[in-house]
Amino acid sequence: MSKKIRVLPLGGLGEIGKNMTVVEIDGRILIVDVGLRFPTAEMMGIDLVLPDFTYLRSRIDDIEGIVVTHGHEDHLGCLPFLERELGAGIPVYGGKLTMAMARSKLDEHKLKQVPVHDLEPGDELRLGPFDIETIHMTHSIPDATAVAIHTELGVVLITGDYKFDQTPVGGVPADVGRLAELGREGILLLCGDSTNADRPGFSASERVVGPELERVFSRCDGRIVVTSFASNIHRVQQVVDAAAALDRRVALVGRSMRKNVNIGRTLGHITVPEGMLVQPRELSDFPDHKLVIMSTGSQGEPMSALRRMAHHDHRQVDLHDGDTVVFSATPIPGNERAVNETVDRLFHIGCDVITTSDAPIHASGHGFAEEMKLMLNLTKPRYVMPFHGDFKRIRLHGQMAESLGVEPDNIFRGENGLPLEITEKGARFGEKEQAGMIFVDGVEIGDVTDVALRDRRMLSSDGIFVVVATVSEQDGSSVAEPEIIFRGVPYPEDAEKLLDQVRDCVERSLDKAADEEVREIDLIQKMLHDDLAELVYSKLKRRPMILPVVVEV
Amino acid sequence: MSKKIRVLPLGGLGEIGKNMTVVEIDGRILIVDVGLRFPTAEMMGIDLVLPDFTYLRSRIDDIEGIVVTHGHEDHLGCLPFLERELGAGIPVYGGKLTMAMARSKLDEHKLKQVPVHDLEPGDELRLGPFDIETIHMTHSIPDATAVAIHTELGVVLITGDYKFDQTPVGGVPADVGRLAELGREGILLLCGDSTNADRPGFSASERVVGPELERVFSRCDGRIVVTSFASNIHRVQQVVDAAAALDRRVALVGRSMRKNVNIGRTLGHITVPEGMLVQPRELSDFPDHKLVIMSTGSQGEPMSALRRMAHHDHRQVDLHDGDTVVFSATPIPGNERAVNETVDRLFHIGCDVITTSDAPIHASGHGFAEEMKLMLNLTKPRYVMPFHGDFKRIRLHGQMAESLGVEPDNIFRGENGLPLEITEKGARFGEKEQAGMIFVDGVEIGDVTDVALRDRRMLSSDGIFVVVATVSEQDGSSVAEPEIIFRGVPYPEDAEKLLDQVRDCVERSLDKAADEEVREIDLIQKMLHDDLAELVYSKLKRRPMILPVVVEV
Repeated sequence: MSKKIRVLPLGGLGEIGKNMTVVEIDGRILIVDVGLRFPTAEMMGIDLVLPDFTYLRSRIDDIEGIVVTHGHEDHLGCLPFLERELGAGIPVYGGKLTMAMARSKLDEHKLKQVPVHDLEPGDELRLGPFDIETIHMTHSIPDATAVAIHTELGVVLITGDYKFDQTPVGGVPADVGRLAELGREGILLLCGDSTNADRPGFSASERVVGPELERVFSRCDGRIVVTSFASNIHRVQQVVDAAAALDRRVALVGRSMRKNVNIGRTLGHITVPEGMLVQPRELSDFPDHKLVIMSTGSQGEPMSALRRMAHHDHRQVDLHDGDTVVFSATPIPGNERAVNETVDRLFHIGCDVITTSDAPIHASGHGFAEEMKLMLNLTKPRYVMPFHGDFKRIRLHGQMAESLGVEPDNIFRGENGLPLEITEKGARFGEKEQAGMIFVDGVEIGDVTDVALRDRRMLSSDGIFVVVATVSEQDGSSVAEPEIIFRGVPYPEDAEKLLDQVRDCVERSLDKAADEEVREIDLIQKMLHDDLAELVYSKLKRRPMILPVVVEV
Repeated sequence: MSKKIRVLPLGGLGEIGKNMTVVEIDGRILIVDVGLRFPTAEMMGIDLVLPDFTYLRSRIDDIEGIVVTHGHEDHLGCLPFLERELGAGIPVYGGKLTMAMARSKLDEHKLKQVPVHDLEPGDELRLGPFDIETIHMTHSIPDATAVAIHTELGVVLITGDYKFDQTPVGGVPADVGRLAELGREGILLLCGDSTNADRPGFSASERVVGPELERVFSRCDGRIVVTSFASNIHRVQQVVDAAAALDRRVALVGRSMRKNVNIGRTLGHITVPEGMLVQPRELSDFPDHKLVIMSTGSQGEPMSALRRMAHHDHRQVDLHDGDTVVFSATPIPGNERAVNETVDRLFHIGCDVITTSDAPIHASGHGFAEEMKLMLNLTKPRYVMPFHGDFKRIRLHGQMAESLGVEPDNIFRGENGLPLEITEKGARFGEKEQAGMIFVDGVEIGDVTDVALRDRRMLSSDGIFVVVATVSEQDGSSVAEPEIIFRGVPYPEDAEKLLDQVRDCVERSLDKAADEEVREIDLIQKMLHDDLAELVYSKLKRRPMILPVVVEV
């Protein structure tokens, strides 16, 4: 049947985040994961970053469906945007919790018509030429799976995010047996998680976190605030268990914490003893040493519950001397400063702060180097294309594959937009397709915002000068004093003098234009712009945006 | 004589950076250190951050002098700004290298008239009521000192940045003997460096770095680029030595690297064998395996030499497959992302990258916890006020003092602007003085830029809408189609429709103003602003800055 397989990553290579892969057989398309990224500080005013899925716009009719490996934002978050933009109601498949989260997202975006299907590991799913199977994996969220696509040439295995947790809190370890079985049958291509390729050894089991939390809690006399990823439902369970063991009640603070715990309880992933949960508004009814507050904000996010608490700006929780804040998470690269700032604010308030450098109260959801090697040895792939990592981790993952005997020529260090094409004759990279970032900016999405972003960067660094000149329709002469407005410009000590100079400059520029009989508004504005830019730079040593407006009357 | 001592930190407490302390006796003032900080991403367009020294403006005549403990920016960088703003030619004292750096800064700011005095450890310096002595310390720059101020009540010891390096590359360990002597005589107040209060044990000696660098170099086949702090002159020496041992030449790239090496060679801190240094333009004359390039950019600074190399944007060095880049520095908190980005760019180019997680090729310049305890034990202070650290490290330093027997009531966890007042009766915090940040923004400095900064933040997040309406002087009616310009606003798909709506809104707003006989331009602009803001938010779900300009003709 199918003689050519094309695996096109649109996100997640050369970066951490916005994972998305397009798999093609016989001109038909299967999408595995639809993730997003959060913007960095330079992406001013941008709300979210999506993979550029332009490639799919002309191929809508070829898309069979979307399979999502697990419910984290970097694998699922782009779903509503993709569905809205492609507008085709592409069916979505994935684990029960993953799909519950997908439904919740689609609902928020008023996309209830999108078909969403729960898929249990072991279920068979046939979508056009795609013979799909999901395999249970362990990660920092329940219902994580790998995706195996059975083809005539062999199995393409996309691991999703995983670790080999031998004692997961959910009770069911990764299905190593099935991976080994597939390996024996022959894996054609392994696309494996590279996130922790730089960490030697094995990751710690999630289960070790619970007793450590209890140990930390037991040394606290006052209130305890625990912050973690809201989606780490097993972590929430362990916090609840530790609180129960020490006879403390638990309050949930932060929208996503409450939402995820609700979903988790509905699906049976979290069990909370009767009467354990108290409402945030009831906190004052209990003595400090009887409370644990589970909060969002482990990444120092500006509007999060914990950040507000650290600034004495939370409606229900006012922190004070004697409270202990436990960070049961590590900062995602790039968030270090925001986290450190929050921590130091808490110290200033008088709280004690416990982080992962004080006690092993966090376990990564991604396998370390030895686990990646275990995956390679289990699956014995002919071809390897490392996924989910920056260029460093992709290279390290490739080196591991080589060290385990994979042919160097069969290891493909890819990048977003570069499709790997496999036929019976071999594998090679094809022509590069469009890939990159698209921004979600308020209600708009699209790369057009690149211009807006460049403008914002300019505005943010040096501000703006608006100059409105009113000229006569007859001869282009200035008929009123120019209006000068500036914003975000360092206000000079002798501002009045500068304004005079700007006015003079405008008059001179307009006179020059009139003399040279320049009458086109665009040209006059350009002359004004250039003259003003020179003047302003010479006076302020800065380059604010100069916006000349010429009004003809 | 002096019965009251006042120690007022204006920077460096509750933060890392901009260290500056005002010591007062008998109404006279001594300033110890005059540092600055680099701006964070939120401080848009800000070039530098200085301590707010408003307190000194009304006290200029009382200032006896400035003593600088060492030549790092966070202890020296504010000097030219302070001298320029106070305009009094306050004399400056410090070690030879420190003062060479001070002169270079003052020259750049055309402040050659400021008196600058070299001060050797052991020299006696008497400034008004201040009996001053400097004590040789070890740090990551030569000529670092502590400052002891002898008073009638005892010695105030400000340690500056220090570590107890037993085998410094400069050859002379910290003057432990003199510290012990002062301790026996009785230290009144210890203001000690808290930077590494969270790191247990002892810091590694700078000297261990050299052999490690040589080991790393010896495994490289191609060119080697080493990046480090340009002021770490002993590190430069060790790079030169390792290069010499492996028969490689050294090129210096980056302005501050060249400048500091020049100063270091002039003062005899760096010895470079004849013919070792090559000019960057000569690089192509040598085979790759005969070269080491010493570069700025260890913090991923946007305009630095290394960042340019990583983006194939450096005039003289084009990196390629086979080159190795060695980071002989760790990211300062907050710079992690910039550093990681640079590293990953280098991996993408095909370079190998060696960081401190691969080999011990960096040693901190700040003593770890056991060294801080050694300092406490040597000096046996009655009072302790931890310096140079965020609130967490200040607290940890205080806890160490307590654990070593300092009375809890004698440990003062301060903050910027809070003066510690010591008399024969005891010590206590006085009334808080003005303290905080002032921004250097192009040529202007001052807190006025707060407004500009707020504007920039608004502009950077949502952009700007400028609307120019032309109205009749007679009746306020609109006499021309309004001009609408937007920048940094997400461009909506139906932009034309939005522009039409904005124009309608302007017309309606002007009609309303005319109807209500509102004729004051300010009021009309305000009405326009409010109407437009509502419309734009309802359409874009964003709040760009709205700038209405009404021109009367």
